[in-house]
Amino acid sequence: MNIRIAIYGYGNLGRGVEAAVKQNKDMELVAVFTRRPPETLSIKTKGVPVISADKVFEMADKIDVMILCGGSATDLPKQTPELSKYFNVVDSFDTHAKIPEHLKNVDAAARKSGKIAVISAGWDPGMFSLNRFLGNAILPEGKDYTFWGKGVSQGHSDAIRRIEGVADAKQYTIPVDTALAMVRSGQTPDLTTKQKHTRECFVVAEDGADKTRIEKEIKEMPNYFSDYDTTVHFISAEELKEKHSGIPHGGFVIRSGKTGFNKENTNVIEYSLKLDSNPEFTSSVLIAYARAAYRMNSEGQSGCKTVLDIEPIYLSSKTREEVIAELL
Amino acid sequence: MNIRIAIYGYGNLGRGVEAAVKQNKDMELVAVFTRRPPETLSIKTKGVPVISADKVFEMADKIDVMILCGGSATDLPKQTPELSKYFNVVDSFDTHAKIPEHLKNVDAAARKSGKIAVISAGWDPGMFSLNRFLGNAILPEGKDYTFWGKGVSQGHSDAIRRIEGVADAKQYTIPVDTALAMVRSGQTPDLTTKQKHTRECFVVAEDGADKTRIEKEIKEMPNYFSDYDTTVHFISAEELKEKHSGIPHGGFVIRSGKTGFNKENTNVIEYSLKLDSNPEFTSSVLIAYARAAYRMNSEGQSGCKTVLDIEPIYLSSKTREEVIAELL
Repeated sequence: MNIRIAIYGYGNLGRGVEAAVKQNKDMELVAVFTRRPPETLSIKTKGVPVISADKVFEMADKIDVMILCGGSATDLPKQTPELSKYFNVVDSFDTHAKIPEHLKNVDAAARKSGKIAVISAGWDPGMFSLNRFLGNAILPEGKDYTFWGKGVSQGHSDAIRRIEGVADAKQYTIPVDTALAMVRSGQTPDLTTKQKHTRECFVVAEDGADKTRIEKEIKEMPNYFSDYDTTVHFISAEELKEKHSGIPHGGFVIRSGKTGFNKENTNVIEYSLKLDSNPEFTSSVLIAYARAAYRMNSEGQSGCKTVLDIEPIYLSSKTREEVIAELL
Repeated sequence: MNIRIAIYGYGNLGRGVEAAVKQNKDMELVAVFTRRPPETLSIKTKGVPVISADKVFEMADKIDVMILCGGSATDLPKQTPELSKYFNVVDSFDTHAKIPEHLKNVDAAARKSGKIAVISAGWDPGMFSLNRFLGNAILPEGKDYTFWGKGVSQGHSDAIRRIEGVADAKQYTIPVDTALAMVRSGQTPDLTTKQKHTRECFVVAEDGADKTRIEKEIKEMPNYFSDYDTTVHFISAEELKEKHSGIPHGGFVIRSGKTGFNKENTNVIEYSLKLDSNPEFTSSVLIAYARAAYRMNSEGQSGCKTVLDIEPIYLSSKTREEVIAELL
């Protein structure tokens, strides 16, 4: 029998989960839950009901894993603990500083209900975290570097859109090539986030808006741009739509560490992602961890898990014998 | 109390393990076992006994994990099952095609003794396998690529040394840049091992040897060189020693996969290693898995495990709370 997956929240991430389920033959999508009026929402998979979020608990025995596709700021801190009371769940909670607190809340709920809740299972946090962790475990005397991009930062794009006179905008975070090259070569400089990244902004100004002022406001915006090397391009709405409507992202996790009795050798581990679609890749990770959640719960396990707590073998639809023969 | 580590076999890998133990504060080296006369072997760590391999079973209660540093051709197929009868063990068995058989033999022994045996825990097999596996689990519709190098291939260097008139030699396996660039860009060509790698040979000829014949014999050697783009450089013994006495290696594991409801987006996952010392890095991986073996066994688990079977969290000397707060 297939693993029955449901989606809670149908934005970019929810649509990505829908596409990912289609690629995994041992799974099927059984419901999409939304806080909008269900009749206003049209999904791509035929025959799957769109159901009001109010009614989610009525479906408890029809769903094996619920994928939570809400935002980390206000949705997930409430939804993940609440839904773990009834379902195995997976989320991509990405407020790094609040993960310990989120884990604690979710763990209490999931232990009580006997369900598995996997949190922060995207790519950062998620696959990047797993690689930072492995690099540290293997090369204890070394240094970590995380570079993000080239990719669209939703938060920074939104910040530009709030400026008066801006009709629309997209912001790309770009790793600094020279910093990346230095780290890859085995050097271990101290680098701040600002030294590792530049910011490139594509802005559509409203008719008659003062572009000089807009550019100045962007470049001087504290926290978001003021300390970065920031470039601003004014383009037409058509060009923005044509060239900048994708949601690419990616980045690099590098561990540079010494080995040898006298630390005479340098070894560099690098993990990188180059993603045409940030939400679709995140969804693909969520779906692999949904499989793990289902299996672990089927074996009687419960509680809150992270990517650091899960045996890799649970993630694959293939048998252990198959993957050992084919991939080890 | 520290985890008590012993080394079985003191070649390049054994020396790497000795250095790695020194970097891990929760471990200590308690013995080195050798098949050579113990008095002929001098190790770097003060106060640690060198003991004849014959006497290994007398030490069963003094060692938490035995790291097996023998070769995959003839040593490990015997040693790993045999020593799992008395010890938690870790090996780096690397004959890919024979892993299922090795696993079966080791599992039977380790289940019977109630010990944990981790096999094939280097980098390929090992960390490369884990990354091939994760790439497949996350992006089910995609293609895998493994490139090796730039690095020294011991087997190919040995093959050259067996040619008449060759005094010494080193062979480097080098990834083909154009093939690597093609795969990184998201294309998914069919590439054989031969299309992905070239071979560069540094050869010291004996006085008066026929270099033309040696070069021809290398380039025409079946399996090893005949199908590859092979370059041969004749150099002096001094130059070989000065410039080619290291044991660097590395490589790239790339998963290129499609996402989206109509597979419209391409996502590329890349894991790479650039190692000054192949055996020291392999040893560092073995030591992290030794920690996992010790902990899993302390919790009552037994049997043969691979990198696909082990919860990442077991690999770190830090607590779960620490790594979740710092690295997730």
